[in-house]
Amino acid sequence: MIRIPFEEVAQQLAAVLRGLGFREERARRCARLFAETTRDGVYSHGVNRFARFVATVRNGSVDPAAEPSVVARFGALERWDGQRGPGNLNAWAAMERAIELSREHGIGCVAMAHTNHWMRGGTFGWQAAEAGVVGMCWTNTMPNVPPWGGVEPAIGNNPLVMAVPRAKGHVVLDMAMSQFSYGALESYRKRGELLPVDGGFDADGKLTRDPGAIEKSQRLLPVGFWKGSGLAVVLDMVAAMTSLGNATHAIANDPLKETGLSQMFVAIDPRGLGDASRMEQIADEVVESLHRTRAAEAGKPVRYPGENTVRLREENRRLGLPVEDAVWGEILRM
Amino acid sequence: MIRIPFEEVAQQLAAVLRGLGFREERARRCARLFAETTRDGVYSHGVNRFARFVATVRNGSVDPAAEPSVVARFGALERWDGQRGPGNLNAWAAMERAIELSREHGIGCVAMAHTNHWMRGGTFGWQAAEAGVVGMCWTNTMPNVPPWGGVEPAIGNNPLVMAVPRAKGHVVLDMAMSQFSYGALESYRKRGELLPVDGGFDADGKLTRDPGAIEKSQRLLPVGFWKGSGLAVVLDMVAAMTSLGNATHAIANDPLKETGLSQMFVAIDPRGLGDASRMEQIADEVVESLHRTRAAEAGKPVRYPGENTVRLREENRRLGLPVEDAVWGEILRM
Repeated sequence: MIRIPFEEVAQQLAAVLRGLGFREERARRCARLFAETTRDGVYSHGVNRFARFVATVRNGSVDPAAEPSVVARFGALERWDGQRGPGNLNAWAAMERAIELSREHGIGCVAMAHTNHWMRGGTFGWQAAEAGVVGMCWTNTMPNVPPWGGVEPAIGNNPLVMAVPRAKGHVVLDMAMSQFSYGALESYRKRGELLPVDGGFDADGKLTRDPGAIEKSQRLLPVGFWKGSGLAVVLDMVAAMTSLGNATHAIANDPLKETGLSQMFVAIDPRGLGDASRMEQIADEVVESLHRTRAAEAGKPVRYPGENTVRLREENRRLGLPVEDAVWGEILRM
Repeated sequence: MIRIPFEEVAQQLAAVLRGLGFREERARRCARLFAETTRDGVYSHGVNRFARFVATVRNGSVDPAAEPSVVARFGALERWDGQRGPGNLNAWAAMERAIELSREHGIGCVAMAHTNHWMRGGTFGWQAAEAGVVGMCWTNTMPNVPPWGGVEPAIGNNPLVMAVPRAKGHVVLDMAMSQFSYGALESYRKRGELLPVDGGFDADGKLTRDPGAIEKSQRLLPVGFWKGSGLAVVLDMVAAMTSLGNATHAIANDPLKETGLSQMFVAIDPRGLGDASRMEQIADEVVESLHRTRAAEAGKPVRYPGENTVRLREENRRLGLPVEDAVWGEILRM
């Protein structure tokens, strides 16, 4: 593992993207979003994910030149077509528009069809929080989790993001609807570790912490069993209906051909209602109440969603982004 | 257990409510919401919950005459004060207004402070779906679940509701953020059964399916462990901030004094964007894809959220509402 300064990583990725046909400004923004994801400690969806992203540009799943376009407007609600452009750029543009709509109407929503994997969903939560508004967004995915009561992947793990702006540290939740991702299962298996809690079913249909057994059965557990399964279904339905895009069952079950996703972006700007300082205080009080609560392990206080990000961000800014030698070597050769 | 016709139940409950100071129309609506909850098979929050609701009116937690009022408006976003009125009537009024706002602006939101337990959250999802719009709402609660990494109840189980209208049967999800409620733990314990999956920690901090051990430790599991814990925190924060109401830590940890809750009601009316028939088709296709998927147990097809409700509703309409003799006896004596 090596440490590389943030700007060097961002510039290198941007150079690769320019070579793939990204225009200057888009290459820079797309590269920064990957570098920021690694900077924030979400290693699975940052620099480590870049090669796979490049592969989807090369195989035509992602069109580097495509920009999202508005299909229909009604008040604070818009329907967009992502035109199969780069997922993180599309999602960024959609959240920017939802934020604008929220400033005008108090709440705003963009539903986007035919887009691509947005990489780290939390990015768009941080984006809303940095703009001073509450953000909420979700995406569907290819079928990668069996619904509750089923044995084959038929629902997506459909990440849901919610973010609250706060001067002392934004609160950002980014949760997929499977208890563990395939990436997480692989990491545990390679380290020879069991999962900390049950993560799926083995070949005999028994709950297990053995990551390899779950990779084989493809029976990942939804968060909260029947509950997360139901939430994944409803998130998928709302995104696909509102955007007139694909629902999970219509998306290719192959990471390199997973395209044509449907996403929702909602922003709420409650400052138009007045009393912004009291709002800030309420958010702080919730954080303080969590920090006050008795911890299960001494020295490990309860954290709010996003709290750890701030620590990792500072560390990775100071020391440079941690990147595997092989991953960086591959990027340098692109 | 006896079976009583729906109308007889609704009239009896309304009579009790009139005696408590509910005006005619409000007594009838409040009573119907309780009866409909039992009719739909959510027995924990229908007629069985009525005596406890009456106790909170009698002890002053719920003001039967209070009506919610608008505190601030900004475009499609409104802040309401629930004035500690009956939680189900307040929530009904707030969702009605969110639906109206969505017809005007595409999306609408009401944030309500100082309200009371809304009883069955799904009620307001069905309400939105019946009106032909997508509904989303959530509430905070008293602290009844330990956050992930903590050992004492400090977050609410903050139910989240999402609903999608569909001519062939609305899709309605109503999920609390604890894997099981205290009511569910009690039912399993009384039947001498273990929970179907881990529901919390025992006194030694080990995950357990023993309902009694969890009732004692008060360490209920959030849905998806760290994930549902984080979601409960963010839902609480958004509801309290936007409404300027109480967050969970400021709510009395006592079912009879649990008052001053904060809630969010969001409605999306995508019909303003056009292509309503394609939207309907997309929702149907998602349902069909679930029904097609291979089931874990033969003869038990995968269901969508709300599918079972339709069956129970029909059965309870036909046979009468199932009510425990003792519960009905108590209501007749009120």
